Amino acid sequence: MVTGQDDSTIIVMRRDATRDDIDHVVERLRDIGAEAHVSEGQIRTIIGAVGDRAVIQQLPWEAFPGVERAVPVLKPYKFVSRDFHPEDSVVDVGGVPVGGNAIVVIAGPCAVENRDQLFTTAAAVQKAGARVLRGDAFKPRTSPYAFQGLGEKGLQLLAEARDEFGMPFVAEVLDPRDVELVSSYADLVRIGARNMANFTLLAEVGRQPKPVMLKRGFTATIDEWLNAAEYVYKEGNHNVILCERGIRTFEQQTRNTLDISAVPVVEALSHLPLIVDPSHSGGRSALVPALTRAAVAAGADGVMIDVHPTPETAQVDGGQALRPAEFGQLMDQVRAVATAVGRGV
Amino acid sequence: MVTGQDDSTIIVMRRDATRDDIDHVVERLRDIGAEAHVSEGQIRTIIGAVGDRAVIQQLPWEAFPGVERAVPVLKPYKFVSRDFHPEDSVVDVGGVPVGGNAIVVIAGPCAVENRDQLFTTAAAVQKAGARVLRGDAFKPRTSPYAFQGLGEKGLQLLAEARDEFGMPFVAEVLDPRDVELVSSYADLVRIGARNMANFTLLAEVGRQPKPVMLKRGFTATIDEWLNAAEYVYKEGNHNVILCERGIRTFEQQTRNTLDISAVPVVEALSHLPLIVDPSHSGGRSALVPALTRAAVAAGADGVMIDVHPTPETAQVDGGQALRPAEFGQLMDQVRAVATAVGRGV
Amino acid sequence: MVTGQDDSTIIVMRRDATRDDIDHVVERLRDIGAEAHVSEGQIRTIIGAVGDRAVIQQLPWEAFPGVERAVPVLKPYKFVSRDFHPEDSVVDVGGVPVGGNAIVVIAGPCAVENRDQLFTTAAAVQKAGARVLRGDAFKPRTSPYAFQGLGEKGLQLLAEARDEFGMPFVAEVLDPRDVELVSSYADLVRIGARNMANFTLLAEVGRQPKPVMLKRGFTATIDEWLNAAEYVYKEGNHNVILCERGIRTFEQQTRNTLDISAVPVVEALSHLPLIVDPSHSGGRSALVPALTRAAVAAGADGVMIDVHPTPETAQVDGGQALRPAEFGQLMDQVRAVATAVGRGV
Amino acid sequence: MVTGQDDSTIIVMRRDATRDDIDHVVERLRDIGAEAHVSEGQIRTIIGAVGDRAVIQQLPWEAFPGVERAVPVLKPYKFVSRDFHPEDSVVDVGGVPVGGNAIVVIAGPCAVENRDQLFTTAAAVQKAGARVLRGDAFKPRTSPYAFQGLGEKGLQLLAEARDEFGMPFVAEVLDPRDVELVSSYADLVRIGARNMANFTLLAEVGRQPKPVMLKRGFTATIDEWLNAAEYVYKEGNHNVILCERGIRTFEQQTRNTLDISAVPVVEALSHLPLIVDPSHSGGRSALVPALTRAAVAAGADGVMIDVHPTPETAQVDGGQALRPAEFGQLMDQVRAVATAVGRGV
Repeated sequence: MVTGQDDSTIIVMRRDATRDDIDHVVERLRDIGAEAHVSEGQIRTIIGAVGDRAVIQQLPWEAFPGVERAVPVLKPYKFVSRDFHPEDSVVDVGGVPVGGNAIVVIAGPCAVENRDQLFTTAAAVQKAGARVLRGDAFKPRTSPYAFQGLGEKGLQLLAEARDEFGMPFVAEVLDPRDVELVSSYADLVRIGARNMANFTLLAEVGRQPKPVMLKRGFTATIDEWLNAAEYVYKEGNHNVILCERGIRTFEQQTRNTLDISAVPVVEALSHLPLIVDPSHSGGRSALVPALTRAAVAAGADGVMIDVHPTPETAQVDGGQALRPAEFGQLMDQVRAVATAVGRGV
Repeated sequence: MVTGQDDSTIIVMRRDATRDDIDHVVERLRDIGAEAHVSEGQIRTIIGAVGDRAVIQQLPWEAFPGVERAVPVLKPYKFVSRDFHPEDSVVDVGGVPVGGNAIVVIAGPCAVENRDQLFTTAAAVQKAGARVLRGDAFKPRTSPYAFQGLGEKGLQLLAEARDEFGMPFVAEVLDPRDVELVSSYADLVRIGARNMANFTLLAEVGRQPKPVMLKRGFTATIDEWLNAAEYVYKEGNHNVILCERGIRTFEQQTRNTLDISAVPVVEALSHLPLIVDPSHSGGRSALVPALTRAAVAAGADGVMIDVHPTPETAQVDGGQALRPAEFGQLMDQVRAVATAVGRGV
Repeated sequence: MVTGQDDSTIIVMRRDATRDDIDHVVERLRDIGAEAHVSEGQIRTIIGAVGDRAVIQQLPWEAFPGVERAVPVLKPYKFVSRDFHPEDSVVDVGGVPVGGNAIVVIAGPCAVENRDQLFTTAAAVQKAGARVLRGDAFKPRTSPYAFQGLGEKGLQLLAEARDEFGMPFVAEVLDPRDVELVSSYADLVRIGARNMANFTLLAEVGRQPKPVMLKRGFTATIDEWLNAAEYVYKEGNHNVILCERGIRTFEQQTRNTLDISAVPVVEALSHLPLIVDPSHSGGRSALVPALTRAAVAAGADGVMIDVHPTPETAQVDGGQALRPAEFGQLMDQVRAVATAVGRGV
Repeated sequence: MVTGQDDSTIIVMRRDATRDDIDHVVERLRDIGAEAHVSEGQIRTIIGAVGDRAVIQQLPWEAFPGVERAVPVLKPYKFVSRDFHPEDSVVDVGGVPVGGNAIVVIAGPCAVENRDQLFTTAAAVQKAGARVLRGDAFKPRTSPYAFQGLGEKGLQLLAEARDEFGMPFVAEVLDPRDVELVSSYADLVRIGARNMANFTLLAEVGRQPKPVMLKRGFTATIDEWLNAAEYVYKEGNHNVILCERGIRTFEQQTRNTLDISAVPVVEALSHLPLIVDPSHSGGRSALVPALTRAAVAAGADGVMIDVHPTPETAQVDGGQALRPAEFGQLMDQVRAVATAVGRGV
């Protein structure tokens, strides 16, 4: 429980609320140790409730007689907010700091398919300037008939590539029963967009020692995303990196709509580092360069990019992967834009 | 793998695609045993690919040189579609048939809080005509500081209420490690909206013997929802009940927007029974009667409704719970509308 | 200006707001004759502003130093709200009351194509029980290359059909310069979804004498829709009928997502009658019966349905039109559901 | 009518379509002079229709017996597409080229309030490097009780400011009856987001001589936006500038979600110049710098920014306006990012 933290909730009474209804709310607030500030208008009365947020926000005010609605004034999360921790957090990923002045580029194949595919890609992205390797061993697939990943074998290959190329790696975990396994290999454990609200998985990664990358659900508001980060944080794992990867909208030209505004919004609300994934948000390799430049210009602390030696043979998301040469050109652009906004790579 | 099933995907070439690009696609289609029907227009060429869907839809066509996009013509799911099983499925939930002529009303508290709250509610809803009891022991909460449920103790209370009132019960499972536990108590195991794309959980409930209620993610398209059902079905559990509970839209007057069109759309696409949850979609008790009547009129096979003896003391979602007397009045409306559309209760 | 009407806006100060920032807001409120209720918490101060809404809501509070955000407590519309006019309004459309106990069915072709098409349809829908005829002479089309309507000739045909079959008719107006023309023929003037926020057109129809049907923009929140109705109302035309026709969401199985929850939500917020258009929301004739039944069951005051003698030759939206025989069967369903909810047709 | 232009539409038959249904579609295609390519699969038949797009896309295929759906392969717009005009268009705005190598910054107050406010702002933005002045005389306001603009008086002040500071100006037009008036003063006539689908207004500005800025409706897909541009273009006005200003999504932290992906998507689909409006999309001044940098980095041809000498006294949208000093700092960032992506200002 977060205690000792102040909250204000505004309780708006209905126009036909009686004096008894108002008194009942005020009494209940006093029961729980909160202050009630009553403002009576010609049409409605509003009650400002000030007290412990964990208590006030959990009461079902809309179920009280005469209450129209309750408007919370503060956010339900605490540890991940700038109110709690005003300075930027820097998270160490196997020796690479994320959230400091340097923009961190994470790159690699969407899924690990075999040794050759992984090592070719890792060699290329490392040479071009990526600092962290990506590659998944467990893949969440919309269709049960699609390739689901190599499992532990994939993690072993990733660990070999790390040793070979000197790059820490990030890999996704899908199942709370695999957290220990993934954590034992990976330098950064990732929660994917589809699992952002899988609270048992969040709690589990909050109890293992590696830093956690938390992707935004493509359906999630920024507040829900920060609440999900709070789940991890409150279990004791403070090394959380957020990753914006687009939200679901009516627009069908892109797989998701990259919410570029989330970069400054999150920067204002939270001290956690923020990475952007232009590959999964756009879903098409042709969009990756523009979205990457935009992310860096907006102030993201890094980007994560799918690269594949031969996209047309990729088993997962080939349509969004850059070829190694294209990735090299993009790195030049990343460096130029980073410099323009006063950051390094 | 689904084999022997025919698919058509339309591959649209770019205006600047070369003869080589076209030949390359045609050749690749032949490699995988599919037919290629080439239509050349003045501006673009399109290629109709006909063959095994599991193979065609997994190839990353957009990564091929000269390809603009690929438009799948058939759906990726098979077993849950009417193409595969034209007749309506009826699922037996502890002796209560769901998906037949009778509308099934499921009712009870959102979360089990204690014996008294559960038994008072169960007695009231049973008397009013509900056939299945709801009540959760594990709650997914956006905030880590909210009440998370009673766990196994809650399941025990539900089982006692079943015996006392003669109503099978449905309860949610959040974690693959709890599937066996929940399955050992409940008559119907529920996957909540936040876990609809939690594929490891889907596979796990697909391997236990109790029927499964699968809520639509508030972010999920109908196709994604049916794909999720396919995950359960293909593991061997064919007793799947779908539950529509609203989707996320820009409208803020309701928690979610109940997608009433999903009722006839799913009825056309799938043989599985469909239930509507008006309590969670609207998020306000005042909306429940209208949404319930609409669901029954539209053709849903049942509704699931939150009831609480004293909503203002509820630990979860009190704002959307009906009081027992309100539920009794609603049951009269359900009976009247069900009769109007030629169904019983 | 709406004066003498009370409002409350909650002004939330930033955590780093100074005493001067707070005093500045309070002073400004006093300048405009509003009361300021200051609640100081441990982290933030909130200020409840109570006074004339037209003044308070127009001030750019977020631009004041130290202000985080301003949360309005009341709605910006007045005349169309139940706060202002608690009883249901009944609007007379050429002798047919809309908003009373009887459900009103409006039916006819989407666009008037020729005399034969219109009269065949009008005869059929009148015989089946429709009370108002629909048919458009001006069509807003996404593509500039699509059929745009017959113009005044179409209105003349509609007027002839009215006289022949004894049914008042509704027709859309697109251009403020055509308002006088359409108003001189039609019994009910319609503002389409694309023009819901065309404020000059709203003001113009507010100054002519015929009742107005205002469709909800497929992008509009319920509050914006009621604000649009307020534009018409405040020009002096109080005969406004609202029409829900679906909102734009991520779901692609339907043209738009019918927001069935809007029926009870609007009923609570406004005294104006509400009609549902199941044809344009679903965009497919197969969905019309289920959506129509749902609308009536939810409490709509009527439905508006596209009917065409030969949908496959229709020049506009043939895919959503019912054939006359299908419409006749639907009328039987409408009568049954209307009776079930205590209303006539 | 666009004739002589090739189209392909894919017509997918239902699984229960008969031989007669298939023949009927094929026959109808031949009637209209189109080719029909029939591909029969085990489950379904699909028919590729190739011929004149203006004819094929207008037929209501979904109303034909046995047809499940029709999937258009090409876009319904022609003149504004890169298929028609592969090179970038450059539009001259009172001597300032938009769409060439230089990034164009448009700045000024949201609404003209008085001479002093306008001239102070114009002097500041001109000095800082803006090339075009913005300022509106007619404002579309959600609430009928909000300030609606100065009308012609505002246009006169803008014309005086143009002469004084040597900057052409852009102003919005809301009503087809005001097009001639606005066109007689402004150098660039703007269609606002709420009027993007106001087709009579689009046609009217297509027939006047000044270039047109067309904002994307916050509800509009990119295809609908390009169709709206086609309305203007086909009336003879080829000087169209597109302006992205955010779309409506579920996220509530920003007024709208800036669709940064629209920048590369539109660049691929159309030859028209594209401007981004970071002020209206975010709705908060604190977000403007990050969104501006992102727009320039993504490849926009310019940005349009609200500036006000004293935002807290602004009559419209004060919360999103930059102060002159903040705008000056932002111009330095624009120059740095523009250089990084190989462009000037």
